[in-house]
Amino acid sequence: MSMYEACIFPLQKMLTNLERWLDKAVAFAEQKKIDPNTLLSARLAPDQFPLVRQIQASCDQAKFTAARLTGKEPPKHPDTEQTIEELRIRLRAVHEYLGTFTREDFEGAAMRAISLVYFEGRFIYGKDYLNELQLPNFYFHVTTAYSILRHNGVDLGKQDFLGSITTHPKG
Amino acid sequence: MSMYEACIFPLQKMLTNLERWLDKAVAFAEQKKIDPNTLLSARLAPDQFPLVRQIQASCDQAKFTAARLTGKEPPKHPDTEQTIEELRIRLRAVHEYLGTFTREDFEGAAMRAISLVYFEGRFIYGKDYLNELQLPNFYFHVTTAYSILRHNGVDLGKQDFLGSITTHPKG
Repeated sequence: MSMYEACIFPLQKMLTNLERWLDKAVAFAEQKKIDPNTLLSARLAPDQFPLVRQIQASCDQAKFTAARLTGKEPPKHPDTEQTIEELRIRLRAVHEYLGTFTREDFEGAAMRAISLVYFEGRFIYGKDYLNELQLPNFYFHVTTAYSILRHNGVDLGKQDFLGSITTHPKG
Repeated sequence: MSMYEACIFPLQKMLTNLERWLDKAVAFAEQKKIDPNTLLSARLAPDQFPLVRQIQASCDQAKFTAARLTGKEPPKHPDTEQTIEELRIRLRAVHEYLGTFTREDFEGAAMRAISLVYFEGRFIYGKDYLNELQLPNFYFHVTTAYSILRHNGVDLGKQDFLGSITTHPKG
């Protein structure tokens, strides 16, 4: 399995799924006659990030994963979004950024030595960066965003979480 | 990157982390003078699985991932756990089961055609099964277990979620 396949496609798909959950959040808010942006300040614990920050973090984990594995400098996003519409723009920007990477960009990515400020004097191999740090972190924020919406009553299920799955006809 | 590396080690580590969260849940319950097993029925939404089922599902996703990618029959677990101690036994059994797999078991796993009852007449390649279905599903249940504990006041942070990270000294 290539690092490109383990990284780009799953991250892109989950960002797409996340935007679909926001569609359902807006529908829910319309039905309840509330401002949908109210949901962005909801959180599951007082010392955990609210929904807006979970989505921003999902975007950041996605862009840093692709950038660091390929030695590129990711675009900056200053976390100023305050509405669902602004978050949609951020989600699409990162989805598009992920789409600029090629399989060739990921050559050697598994054994690339990556330095991070919080691993002073140490490095992490690209494959460990992906498997131990970035995928868990990315799914953490995406799942927490989903759970905040579920907890607030938005009509979401496992199919919404997973999105479309690549299958092939038998025989 | 090998399928073995993308599968076995991250799954084992997260199951280990999950058991550490249960240690913190027990410490929290002692401090609050409540039965720690009370937490097992907590959930984030009335139509979502409670904690006990999130942990059982994490175990199932982990064992099925390794088994289906390698064409083996996984051990059966009838979901009868009712206490944290019983869940620890399940978590360790699955951790141990994952430890029985070798790199050789995963040869050809990326392009293995996997049939699932809910993909009638279709199959999924091993790499897509891992990236699109199993890792998202596994992290979904693990993160939701974590969020249920956080939501109930258990003292957990991102470091508890990620656990130890494999880094190497520079130079």
